[in-house]
Amino acid sequence: MAEGSDRRAVVLLSGGLDSATVLAEAVDRGFVCHTLAVDYGQRHRAELDAAARVSRELGAVSHKVVAVDLRAIGGSALTDEIDVPTELGEGIPVTYVPARNTLMLSLALGYAEVLEAEDLFIGVNAVDYSGYPDCRPEFIAAFEALAVLATRAGVEGGGLRVHTPLIDLKKSEIVRHGTDLGVDYAMTVSCYQADAEGRACGRCDSCRLRRQGFIDAGMADPTRYV
Amino acid sequence: MAEGSDRRAVVLLSGGLDSATVLAEAVDRGFVCHTLAVDYGQRHRAELDAAARVSRELGAVSHKVVAVDLRAIGGSALTDEIDVPTELGEGIPVTYVPARNTLMLSLALGYAEVLEAEDLFIGVNAVDYSGYPDCRPEFIAAFEALAVLATRAGVEGGGLRVHTPLIDLKKSEIVRHGTDLGVDYAMTVSCYQADAEGRACGRCDSCRLRRQGFIDAGMADPTRYV
Repeated sequence: MAEGSDRRAVVLLSGGLDSATVLAEAVDRGFVCHTLAVDYGQRHRAELDAAARVSRELGAVSHKVVAVDLRAIGGSALTDEIDVPTELGEGIPVTYVPARNTLMLSLALGYAEVLEAEDLFIGVNAVDYSGYPDCRPEFIAAFEALAVLATRAGVEGGGLRVHTPLIDLKKSEIVRHGTDLGVDYAMTVSCYQADAEGRACGRCDSCRLRRQGFIDAGMADPTRYV
Repeated sequence: MAEGSDRRAVVLLSGGLDSATVLAEAVDRGFVCHTLAVDYGQRHRAELDAAARVSRELGAVSHKVVAVDLRAIGGSALTDEIDVPTELGEGIPVTYVPARNTLMLSLALGYAEVLEAEDLFIGVNAVDYSGYPDCRPEFIAAFEALAVLATRAGVEGGGLRVHTPLIDLKKSEIVRHGTDLGVDYAMTVSCYQADAEGRACGRCDSCRLRRQGFIDAGMADPTRYV
């Protein structure tokens, strides 16, 4: 019997390459997957359309979108009127959204409580990531500790696991793994400034990491570029 | 010199009695206070009006409202079409909003990063509380541990403190303390189902706890009831 048989899981879905792979993995492990996308006022609205498509195509049983207006607090090139850079720089980049993963995991946690699910999946990656502090394994471990204390499960018994199946994989390994699981990456959008049709700029951080992943994997890049 | 001189703090403000007292305390300690209210689709919209008023009257330097549509995930009498109970029951009540404090602290954390503030204030209380798991001291400690790992501060140095000045106080002690600090509780709204003018029902959990607080403190209750 598969690990997750009949167990509900909440899978955070951005519409990008990583989270699509995570969903495919969770479905493959036998979890009954409820996907959650967070509309945090990001510039790249095409991601949200992609998330709904990915959820449907990869076999999730439901898809929800929660809107959080992060523009009210500002601070990132992804939500503010700050230019998205086209070079990989040093340190934490301006595309970092303050406390984004904390927030997304909090929403997933609330949703998990409603569903009585004890498993969360998130596509964070500590190898080919962009230098964000909230993609590190120690951050995930701290969230898991928090989650148990924060919820009904923590009071009434039960647990809470945060699954990060990509955390130690290189981008090329993610691409190969997802392809083995049947993910069609043409339907995913990773670009920070994709156009309304979901076509990628080919120049931002996220596009560069993604393109390099396909090159390193020795696979054709199905991304639609402008 | 006061503890918080020239230090910025983010103060979570609900418009209720507890968070108003917390703001008065943070201002009294010398912090430069930026208040944050979270509009999570709660039934009691009058709370948000009260939050803006409390922020202004008690000397915060700015007030922001972040909207999060928690109705998308459901699960609480405060956001769903579930009746608000009028009796204090056993266990975790239906007015519990899944992962609410985790979410509110996450938003405060993101805002603190933008402001380069290292101090968060929240009015949780582990004595006269309603049995919510995310009001316990161990939850706050776990969030503080998470926050340091989650943010730029955790990577680039600096810290993050979550202040809970009410955590060990009885409701009557909170009321007395706030009154000493000059809080006019007539402008606060605690009721789970206040009307559009902010008048309280007098019957829900929150109204009962609040009313008992004034009685135990031997003070007149300035709450406007319907």
